[in-house]
Amino acid sequence: MIVTGREVINMSISLGLEDVFIKYTSLTSIDGEKGELRYRGYDIKDLVEHCSFEEVAYLMFYGELPKRDELEHFKSNVMKNYKIPENVKNIIKNMPRDGDALAIMEAAFAALSTEEYTWEKERDREKAAEIMGRALGIVSAVFRYRDGREIKDPENKGYAEAFLNACFDSGIDEDKIKAMNAALILYIDHEVPASTTAALVASSTLSDMYSCVTAAIAALKGPLHGGAAEAAYKQFLAIKSPENVDSWFNENILNNKKRLMGFGHRVYKTYDPRMLIFKELARKNAKTDEQKKILELAERLEALGVKNFGQKKIFPNTDYYSGIVFNEIGFPLYMFTTLFALSRVVGWVAHISEYVESEERLIRPRAIYIGPEKRDVVPIDKR
Amino acid sequence: MIVTGREVINMSISLGLEDVFIKYTSLTSIDGEKGELRYRGYDIKDLVEHCSFEEVAYLMFYGELPKRDELEHFKSNVMKNYKIPENVKNIIKNMPRDGDALAIMEAAFAALSTEEYTWEKERDREKAAEIMGRALGIVSAVFRYRDGREIKDPENKGYAEAFLNACFDSGIDEDKIKAMNAALILYIDHEVPASTTAALVASSTLSDMYSCVTAAIAALKGPLHGGAAEAAYKQFLAIKSPENVDSWFNENILNNKKRLMGFGHRVYKTYDPRMLIFKELARKNAKTDEQKKILELAERLEALGVKNFGQKKIFPNTDYYSGIVFNEIGFPLYMFTTLFALSRVVGWVAHISEYVESEERLIRPRAIYIGPEKRDVVPIDKR
Repeated sequence: MIVTGREVINMSISLGLEDVFIKYTSLTSIDGEKGELRYRGYDIKDLVEHCSFEEVAYLMFYGELPKRDELEHFKSNVMKNYKIPENVKNIIKNMPRDGDALAIMEAAFAALSTEEYTWEKERDREKAAEIMGRALGIVSAVFRYRDGREIKDPENKGYAEAFLNACFDSGIDEDKIKAMNAALILYIDHEVPASTTAALVASSTLSDMYSCVTAAIAALKGPLHGGAAEAAYKQFLAIKSPENVDSWFNENILNNKKRLMGFGHRVYKTYDPRMLIFKELARKNAKTDEQKKILELAERLEALGVKNFGQKKIFPNTDYYSGIVFNEIGFPLYMFTTLFALSRVVGWVAHISEYVESEERLIRPRAIYIGPEKRDVVPIDKR
Repeated sequence: MIVTGREVINMSISLGLEDVFIKYTSLTSIDGEKGELRYRGYDIKDLVEHCSFEEVAYLMFYGELPKRDELEHFKSNVMKNYKIPENVKNIIKNMPRDGDALAIMEAAFAALSTEEYTWEKERDREKAAEIMGRALGIVSAVFRYRDGREIKDPENKGYAEAFLNACFDSGIDEDKIKAMNAALILYIDHEVPASTTAALVASSTLSDMYSCVTAAIAALKGPLHGGAAEAAYKQFLAIKSPENVDSWFNENILNNKKRLMGFGHRVYKTYDPRMLIFKELARKNAKTDEQKKILELAERLEALGVKNFGQKKIFPNTDYYSGIVFNEIGFPLYMFTTLFALSRVVGWVAHISEYVESEERLIRPRAIYIGPEKRDVVPIDKR
């Protein structure tokens, strides 16, 4: 019960909405104590081992893993949208070349929001495939543009392979494709963090799907949300070499109480299950001396972090090793958050479709007024 | 208390967040029973009568109405941002010319989100003035582009006048400037509807201000939120002439139970105070025969609506007459929601600054999982 200046109301205050359930979902379940993450009942590790990104996206959109013909049909719907319209390419090319990669992705998605959209279950599934395809074309275009190269239209191949081929001119092998496929699956969804919440708010007004994804990207862009993999990797770069780990940890973390990046999570009280998979991928794909050095450094730092913070239930999270994997595939630091977004588009679209199709309500919270009481305007020269 | 498959939790479910306070605010207070709306303690009618849009924006950003020198300083900060960068003009020109005007505004704001932003009280005020200025340049450019004319750089004049002069090549008089100024004040803020909530969610991750506004526009775009003035005006056009009001009302509203557009509000249980001001403005600016006819039609329909629904506390809302005023000023139907956004930018920016500066938390609600229990992946050919 809340007493304001004017009325007594039976409502709850929830800053950060921490203790509020905003929706029902059949998509993702997290057990933070056991360190389990499941999409529609399937363990994340099981999905990464056996499935392509498209299969898991299909699972998120339709509720079941696809039979072979269903998968082929879905893939062709995704594929035919890989190539982005010329005006969207022009819009990307009109963004500052050194601008934030995620901001360029945000503008490209906003640029696709001009059509009116009427939500309807079958149409939503078609639109989901379209948006997945467009995301591939947009993110690869953003990377090539930022990297100073001509935008290349993607080939009609599976998602992870088509994406890497569109991004890079050479050097893509089976290991990299597998790592990319796994990373795409791992980041698909994580219930309702801020970006997904922003998308839900937009969908609750029945805005179009591209606008909902744009709202999500706008929220992901904040350093408290999407930038964790980048922050963890920057920390590795600052440490420079494995032999510096101990002294760096003592000075920065223990003495100066800086935050250990890539550690800790609101939900997980043990190892983040995605982190364990990313760690395996990082080991498998460390091929150059530089990559091996960064990996060794990260593993030493992880051991120190767990030794010091494990008893407080602070463990490495998914972003701790993901940047290493992205880098081993060939991506620079500035693309990490955008790669996260490329995958998360699937989760956003699955959540907003679920929200609208359950006929949920317009999202309209309230604010508690604590400002001045009634007063009269004084003419400007008497203020 | 909630019992899920795995745990018992002491949390509340709130679909639509209807009964949740998401923040404290000193900005806007609404008394839905009395039909009162105040910005920082000042009655909306008092502000419209005595203030310029810039004065009220200053009030929202700084907490007090400005002294003359404060106002001049603020205005010059706003003005110097009227002119939008060339790349943003190019981005607007790369949008489909017949595309949704608000979507073009959304893309233009996203295009300005590439710089990193660090929130800090003084800097936030400078940024607020910048965004207000840019909004004028963007919305006038969107209108001229949609209307098939060259984009014109705004002159260094007061906001309402500079905006109308940038939009139109002739025909702007004192009455129109006053009406535009009033409309801009009336739409500035209305507590935390969906668009403002989307902006808050983005700000809670410390995303940049342009991205927060982009998220708000993405949410405003939905027909359940921003499109009400357009819907009300379309209804007037469908009725065509005052003498058709009675038969149209009987057939559509009483017999076929269609919704009377521009009527009813979640908060107001009497006349929306903004609507009464818009009605006066509509009367004052009805100059052509066509404008007088639409106004007469709207007034007749209002009387019928109040007669039939007033006892259920359903009254005309702010969007009932605002479209008529926008049309009298010279704007076509497709610009109504974008004009709403032009004003609301001030409310969005004031709310996100207030949220971040009160050191509020990352917005991260939860979802209740109701999907399948644990299951194993079956190979694709055995599905």
